[in-house]
Amino acid sequence: MTIQTLLGIDLPIIQAPMAGVQGHELAVAVSNVGGLGSLPCAMLSPDSLREELLALTGQTSRPYNVNFFCHTPPEPDAEVERLWRKTLAPYFDEFDIDASTLSSQAGRAPFSAEMADVLAEFEPPVVSFHFGLPAPELMDRIRGWGGKILSTATTVDEALWLEAQGVDAIIAQGLEAGGHRGFFLSNDLNTQIGTFALIPQLIDAVNVPVIAAGGIADAQGIQAAMALGAAGAQIGTAFLLCPEAQTKPMHRAALKSESSRVTALTNLFSGGAARGIVNRVIRELGPMNDTAPAFPLASSAIAPLRAKAEAGGSGDFSPLWSGQNATGCKEVSAAILTRELAGMNE
Amino acid sequence: MTIQTLLGIDLPIIQAPMAGVQGHELAVAVSNVGGLGSLPCAMLSPDSLREELLALTGQTSRPYNVNFFCHTPPEPDAEVERLWRKTLAPYFDEFDIDASTLSSQAGRAPFSAEMADVLAEFEPPVVSFHFGLPAPELMDRIRGWGGKILSTATTVDEALWLEAQGVDAIIAQGLEAGGHRGFFLSNDLNTQIGTFALIPQLIDAVNVPVIAAGGIADAQGIQAAMALGAAGAQIGTAFLLCPEAQTKPMHRAALKSESSRVTALTNLFSGGAARGIVNRVIRELGPMNDTAPAFPLASSAIAPLRAKAEAGGSGDFSPLWSGQNATGCKEVSAAILTRELAGMNE
Repeated sequence: MTIQTLLGIDLPIIQAPMAGVQGHELAVAVSNVGGLGSLPCAMLSPDSLREELLALTGQTSRPYNVNFFCHTPPEPDAEVERLWRKTLAPYFDEFDIDASTLSSQAGRAPFSAEMADVLAEFEPPVVSFHFGLPAPELMDRIRGWGGKILSTATTVDEALWLEAQGVDAIIAQGLEAGGHRGFFLSNDLNTQIGTFALIPQLIDAVNVPVIAAGGIADAQGIQAAMALGAAGAQIGTAFLLCPEAQTKPMHRAALKSESSRVTALTNLFSGGAARGIVNRVIRELGPMNDTAPAFPLASSAIAPLRAKAEAGGSGDFSPLWSGQNATGCKEVSAAILTRELAGMNE
Repeated sequence: MTIQTLLGIDLPIIQAPMAGVQGHELAVAVSNVGGLGSLPCAMLSPDSLREELLALTGQTSRPYNVNFFCHTPPEPDAEVERLWRKTLAPYFDEFDIDASTLSSQAGRAPFSAEMADVLAEFEPPVVSFHFGLPAPELMDRIRGWGGKILSTATTVDEALWLEAQGVDAIIAQGLEAGGHRGFFLSNDLNTQIGTFALIPQLIDAVNVPVIAAGGIADAQGIQAAMALGAAGAQIGTAFLLCPEAQTKPMHRAALKSESSRVTALTNLFSGGAARGIVNRVIRELGPMNDTAPAFPLASSAIAPLRAKAEAGGSGDFSPLWSGQNATGCKEVSAAILTRELAGMNE
């Protein structure tokens, strides 16, 4: 089955949900031209989720996707947090930050009954998950209003697990992809493989549609993914320069520069492995730092550094999320970009 | 220009040269059905090169490729070697190997005037290089007999450099690829990107044909690479189970097992980053071990461990070279496999 039929859309394109750099504006723009716009919800409170959904549903009558994380929150560990702050201490000194005033807010919560209550008010047609799936009763609620359920697989094992839980389609996240790796059955980075290798293996393994993600940045990329047998493509990085995205100026500048050619999987910004453009803090602490607390606990201590640096116009401490292929980034409206991705403006 | 026109072949398929696991037999089989067979020469002496070329040219009149490394051999460093042997010492004890008897043979020599002399006897139609290019006078000798010159790029910078040196085509080696990474302008592994991300960036950057390599294992993969704009594909891993390859039994068994799903870039076997299936020594020493000498010097001390383990039927200390997509490996003749890759047997 094509994802157009499955999801009720015109184009085989899902705009990847990108927490922290977009809200409903980008999702609306993509959905309104026939792709599937996505609202990232991992960093929203129930109230802000409701506000975003009110705005979104007020501006499109087309299908859209809401995306949640499904991680198991780790127990905060004072000693781990102390070591992490020790790693960051020279930067606190440099930016004149009083570490004793730092909050311990995680900033990213997993999908919950409370969030499902808000969703029930809107009955979103598609709900996608990262880091696995929520409890079966929460999935049943989504199915109850006819919502389709997607989740991310990075390995054959994850794809088989998701299929067994009854997902409607699987997003195959190749190693090229920007942002957080969705892996959830193993924490071995060697299991993470490129899109060219991942798509055929998942298609061999499962019977549900497989949607390609990672390194896809233009119409040719989508055609290539379909040639591999993918039912569609999920594309994130290419949308980051669109005016509808909330990408910050230093992030936009990095995406437009040659520095976008060198990304790394880093745990510095959240504790989870996520791909972003290599910047000062990644160079100096190493992309994967052993003292970073588990996802999502690393974010609280680095947040004030990011805020101070950004206030000075610097992206040295910002997560400059990007996949390995930023060549598709264009400063055009998301409507134009989506149509170009679909090969309609050529 | 298609690589069929450029190289005088019928199919847009280059069999990747794989030093240590194949000789002329595999190259002959691929060339005789219209692909470009490749003879890996990095581990051959001038005399054995001549023997291989006599055998190869005796069995095919079609174009073929000879492949050489172009690394700058590092100065051996006794202290570095001592530390490496200290890392391996527990294994020497386990396998009852007297470390004092170890040779210091590097095993892999860069292309040289002496090798060019042997080539001149045969005038191979295609010569490909890994780790850059040889001196201009050596390239001129190849051009003198009309030989086409290919080399590997893993980044935009490397592709631009190769184009400036006048290569006839560039092999874009995506991060999925098995065996040695061909990078030569940077040793930063973060510059190494997946095939989906690499192909479009190289095609944007250069005007010579770009040949895709890494993660391509079947006819759909080749179609996908062409959809991205590649002029052809270079395929290695898929040929490793062919009877014409010299792949050892434990290597074949690993490729056929689920363990082939987890590969890593490792420097344990040569000192250079190369992708192989994760086995005991990679798990125990870490894939990238700081005590391994520079390429190709790490190989001499680990070689006797490999030999002893293999004699006992174990691949625990063998380089089980593989890309991230071993799904194309089939126990069929290379002729059949090549035709299948070209979509001719379907």
